[in-house]
Amino acid sequence: MSSAFGRLFTVTTFGESHGPAVGVVIDGAPPGYAISLEAAQRELDRRRPAQSAVTSPRREADTVHALSGLFEGRTTGAPICLVAYNEDARPADYEKLKDVFRPGHADFTYQAKYGLRDWRGSGRASGRETLGRVAAGAVARQLLATVGVRVIGGTVAVGEVLAERRDWDEVERNAVRCPDAAAAAAMERGILAASEARDSVGGVVEVVAAGVPAGWGDPTMDKLDAKLAHALMSIPAVKGVEIGDGFALARARGSQANDALGPGGFATNRQGGILGGISTGQDVVARVAVKPASSIGRPQSTVDTSGHPVTVEIEGRHDPCICPRVVSVAEAMVCLVLADAWLRQRALRGD
Amino acid sequence: MSSAFGRLFTVTTFGESHGPAVGVVIDGAPPGYAISLEAAQRELDRRRPAQSAVTSPRREADTVHALSGLFEGRTTGAPICLVAYNEDARPADYEKLKDVFRPGHADFTYQAKYGLRDWRGSGRASGRETLGRVAAGAVARQLLATVGVRVIGGTVAVGEVLAERRDWDEVERNAVRCPDAAAAAAMERGILAASEARDSVGGVVEVVAAGVPAGWGDPTMDKLDAKLAHALMSIPAVKGVEIGDGFALARARGSQANDALGPGGFATNRQGGILGGISTGQDVVARVAVKPASSIGRPQSTVDTSGHPVTVEIEGRHDPCICPRVVSVAEAMVCLVLADAWLRQRALRGD
Amino acid sequence: MSSAFGRLFTVTTFGESHGPAVGVVIDGAPPGYAISLEAAQRELDRRRPAQSAVTSPRREADTVHALSGLFEGRTTGAPICLVAYNEDARPADYEKLKDVFRPGHADFTYQAKYGLRDWRGSGRASGRETLGRVAAGAVARQLLATVGVRVIGGTVAVGEVLAERRDWDEVERNAVRCPDAAAAAAMERGILAASEARDSVGGVVEVVAAGVPAGWGDPTMDKLDAKLAHALMSIPAVKGVEIGDGFALARARGSQANDALGPGGFATNRQGGILGGISTGQDVVARVAVKPASSIGRPQSTVDTSGHPVTVEIEGRHDPCICPRVVSVAEAMVCLVLADAWLRQRALRGD
Amino acid sequence: MSSAFGRLFTVTTFGESHGPAVGVVIDGAPPGYAISLEAAQRELDRRRPAQSAVTSPRREADTVHALSGLFEGRTTGAPICLVAYNEDARPADYEKLKDVFRPGHADFTYQAKYGLRDWRGSGRASGRETLGRVAAGAVARQLLATVGVRVIGGTVAVGEVLAERRDWDEVERNAVRCPDAAAAAAMERGILAASEARDSVGGVVEVVAAGVPAGWGDPTMDKLDAKLAHALMSIPAVKGVEIGDGFALARARGSQANDALGPGGFATNRQGGILGGISTGQDVVARVAVKPASSIGRPQSTVDTSGHPVTVEIEGRHDPCICPRVVSVAEAMVCLVLADAWLRQRALRGD
Repeated sequence: MSSAFGRLFTVTTFGESHGPAVGVVIDGAPPGYAISLEAAQRELDRRRPAQSAVTSPRREADTVHALSGLFEGRTTGAPICLVAYNEDARPADYEKLKDVFRPGHADFTYQAKYGLRDWRGSGRASGRETLGRVAAGAVARQLLATVGVRVIGGTVAVGEVLAERRDWDEVERNAVRCPDAAAAAAMERGILAASEARDSVGGVVEVVAAGVPAGWGDPTMDKLDAKLAHALMSIPAVKGVEIGDGFALARARGSQANDALGPGGFATNRQGGILGGISTGQDVVARVAVKPASSIGRPQSTVDTSGHPVTVEIEGRHDPCICPRVVSVAEAMVCLVLADAWLRQRALRGD
Repeated sequence: MSSAFGRLFTVTTFGESHGPAVGVVIDGAPPGYAISLEAAQRELDRRRPAQSAVTSPRREADTVHALSGLFEGRTTGAPICLVAYNEDARPADYEKLKDVFRPGHADFTYQAKYGLRDWRGSGRASGRETLGRVAAGAVARQLLATVGVRVIGGTVAVGEVLAERRDWDEVERNAVRCPDAAAAAAMERGILAASEARDSVGGVVEVVAAGVPAGWGDPTMDKLDAKLAHALMSIPAVKGVEIGDGFALARARGSQANDALGPGGFATNRQGGILGGISTGQDVVARVAVKPASSIGRPQSTVDTSGHPVTVEIEGRHDPCICPRVVSVAEAMVCLVLADAWLRQRALRGD
Repeated sequence: MSSAFGRLFTVTTFGESHGPAVGVVIDGAPPGYAISLEAAQRELDRRRPAQSAVTSPRREADTVHALSGLFEGRTTGAPICLVAYNEDARPADYEKLKDVFRPGHADFTYQAKYGLRDWRGSGRASGRETLGRVAAGAVARQLLATVGVRVIGGTVAVGEVLAERRDWDEVERNAVRCPDAAAAAAMERGILAASEARDSVGGVVEVVAAGVPAGWGDPTMDKLDAKLAHALMSIPAVKGVEIGDGFALARARGSQANDALGPGGFATNRQGGILGGISTGQDVVARVAVKPASSIGRPQSTVDTSGHPVTVEIEGRHDPCICPRVVSVAEAMVCLVLADAWLRQRALRGD
Repeated sequence: MSSAFGRLFTVTTFGESHGPAVGVVIDGAPPGYAISLEAAQRELDRRRPAQSAVTSPRREADTVHALSGLFEGRTTGAPICLVAYNEDARPADYEKLKDVFRPGHADFTYQAKYGLRDWRGSGRASGRETLGRVAAGAVARQLLATVGVRVIGGTVAVGEVLAERRDWDEVERNAVRCPDAAAAAAMERGILAASEARDSVGGVVEVVAAGVPAGWGDPTMDKLDAKLAHALMSIPAVKGVEIGDGFALARARGSQANDALGPGGFATNRQGGILGGISTGQDVVARVAVKPASSIGRPQSTVDTSGHPVTVEIEGRHDPCICPRVVSVAEAMVCLVLADAWLRQRALRGD
């Protein structure tokens, strides 16, 4: 089940970048919950490229259709299939790249794994696969809202520029989706500079889940942070995940790292709302390292499928920094993990 | 299956710190492979505390017994149950902590999740649970060796001290299991300083898998790096995971981050041997952030199970830095992920 | 994952009888295999009603569309989504039944389970859900053909009429899909008699898989026969499953039931090609008991959703005997089980 | 996970007939439930041979030990490992059979599947593997009792002798565990006659679950009856499963088969308490066909592992009819299915 995620709230994405459609099947949504497809559409619109100068100009309508599982606007307990038909597919754009292994892309590894690959627009490895994740995440988000869980994210670093503040209302007001307006401006400049240099730039995305009650998640193998790490590291371009203070805790002492507990609750949240793999009731905080987009206009050395050296310059519709788009995918993956943990805890405790 | 990991090579650990035994069941080991329990025992001995001044003086014999699944020294395809009986259990040591939520520990979250908890030596949340992981990892390691895969790890940072070299032969020659002898000495000093301050210190552990052929792992949800992240983040005290250059890639440009490809293979390995979730044939490189051990002698503010504030000073047998012990657990988890990926690729391609 | 089946070759069906579409996602098909959608369409056409006087006159075009996973006519290793849009949906036909629990149907139990239900044409409980199974089975069948496995089935009993012969070439020549031409005629008469009495009649469907090599299947929990039982009992209207001589073995002695083994192989096949849950290399033989279709024209006593007694006469387009249609579904489910067992054995043995 | 069963209440058995131990790990038991090991021991004692003239005289103490997961007599949410050490192992008894494929046994198929096998007492294929199932079933039974579910079973046919009554209080009063005292006497005579003829005889075992509320189970693939079929067909020697009237429904008309519904509930229970894969609130009724024990004293034709013809007469400690022992295993498997369905429904509906 390489394309499935979740044990009780199970999602399976399908579809290639330039095939007929991309989509997702959600198996395990509990019955009787109102689901707004309009709200899901808004999530997809956030993921969509062509939103600003700092993202790809490819136009994707990305209209979501529900093929199953909803009746009179509510979940029925049946699998929910959500699909978006590919409208702006231009496989010919990729014809000349079909025999080339683009650096940083999965061309070489798909060929090694499968012995063949759908080379049209990266096929299954395209960021377009994440549309199904975001659609499923939008359903999960609506379910979670009924129990008071809210998930929000933003770009907190681009290159060397760091966000100093976490003003989540700011996120949708700037093109990089940064919760710090001042940093956002500097980030935009950094992205445009990279773009002008026919290059790309990486960054860090942070996701916060508020309202998660204490007790979600499992100990040992299926720790809440382990599942978050799985979910977030499965996003294209993500190369690192940390929870709470993360790698900074590796440089700390125990007396600094332990969050003291008092009658009013925890005094600090260095652990990111998770202890022993189980939520503490505080905000759950995760961050992911996003590598710079692999598609760049600069000439790069690589080989073709016969092993001969070639130089490739990737043209076309690409993002100089994908952090703004990763935000919605990362939020979606956190929603998927939490929906699963919610149902799991209901199974264990019956409430 | 909160205590299970792996789809084809499935391991389920069981056991509490101060119960009768800890162990693991491995379901899915392919038949006909020679397994040395002596080699497995050596892995357990590496995980064992009381090995040096920098780790806990608790004595654990940790003798591994095979209850099933091996016949005449070989796997039969049947589940392999490996168990170690608890010999040095002293639950009375923990009696006075049974009503206290120790900071940094999972006491509070277990209580919130389950409504009760086995308070004897952290019960299931004890690092002792990892014995089953290491035993299973030792089996996986022996299987992987038959196809040329070798997994090695070491402590590459303690507090602010970083290893500059990766001399893997050095690892078993120093108490912190550092692949850099000079850094190891500084790390030891740091650990002892923390210990004298009745405190603890964090660090970073790196694991490298050599010999992994190109094509292992799955795209989308079950990416090889996603499963590594899941596996590694499920280790107690781990708060971050990165692959290849990880978080450093967030500060890089695409022209730096993309590993160029030539007729002789990849020129660099910034991506850590994984592209699009699939192995490239290079070394697979992962690093984890290990938080400072939660058990410290210093007085800490917390509450008891009735919510009243108390001050706790944790006495007893504890590690000032758990990185040297995390090394063997992290190696084991990487072996579990790779064994699963190996079988999965055999299923897909029939070789 | 209530709508998913299979561990390595995982299929998830979706869709309601009178919603926009029904379909299936296949996750785990190995790469590089040619798949003919025309062949899949022929399987769907066999499942389709309106084929003869003995089945429902409802017209369903059931044209299968591949939304993903195939490239240049071959599997790529990516999820394959197959879908058929509902064209002849007439939800109004069911409006008057929306508050009635039809006897023999799942109306009452869906309401009890979910608290609400999609009452249009039985919604998810409709036989139409099996379209996705047959589509996925058609893919599995084509994969299995490459390793020499052939799956065929037929109706071997209708009411009290039993097929005496197994002439599989005969199956597609008669309306009941019976491998015995003489019995087929008697079966047809029985079905029409039931139909004229505004009643329905049950029967038995047999499926045979030839060419399955010795060694497929697993012992203990995932026995090949256990998975076949799971798969076949999950077909709507199936109330019993037997392997080989099945219930007749309960009346036999060991000296009769044991298949003797000689240098040329097994002398008989009373065990149905499976011993200890693992295939013997003989034909795998399974039979299912199909209950009479629940929808009958006769007046029946039941209650409405408020618990008040009502009499219901079910009109509309229904099958007096569903065995001929169950044949293709049962074959499909056997193909799904065998595809999974094939991949599992490749994982175990590497060939 | 060939030795695992269940999605939320997951059990994995381990152990060979003549290895050090047999046992089970239960992962997913909800926390806070009192578990009596004495009650579990009583279940194991029912499964144990050497109980009467009609079962094998092999002495097995089968004392169950809990290695983990219980604290102060209650479940903690952690995996429960239950184990019984093998005390009466006599591998030498089997030495002469190690190169012979016994008819009706899994010797040939294990060899074909794995390329090697643990030939000591059938190894993993021994009925002794079911000890772990019964131990886990005993835990499930105790959990189910807290929500009012009771599971009882008995032998309802031996050879041609059928039980006419279902007096469940009678079951433990006769050696064949038959709920009809008169039939029991005839069954015993039949078994002894077969035994004297150095032969064995088959039968039918029925299991009834009372108190299952309406709404348990899942539609489509994971139907409650499909999971029961999976669970029951995985019991050694079982070759058929039917629900409610089962194969008799194949000979019925719809007007007979449909259970009418009135204000007081269902008028009859021909469907065995399941409609559309979901429980109706009536008794859940399942029956299994048990083949005659494969081990018989009569000379049988077979081949050795080199393919040469040999005649084998199986001596030693064997059951002429295993139905009395299958009763406890079948009950256990039904308990496992229902415990899983219970938790699943809690996850879906939150109560």
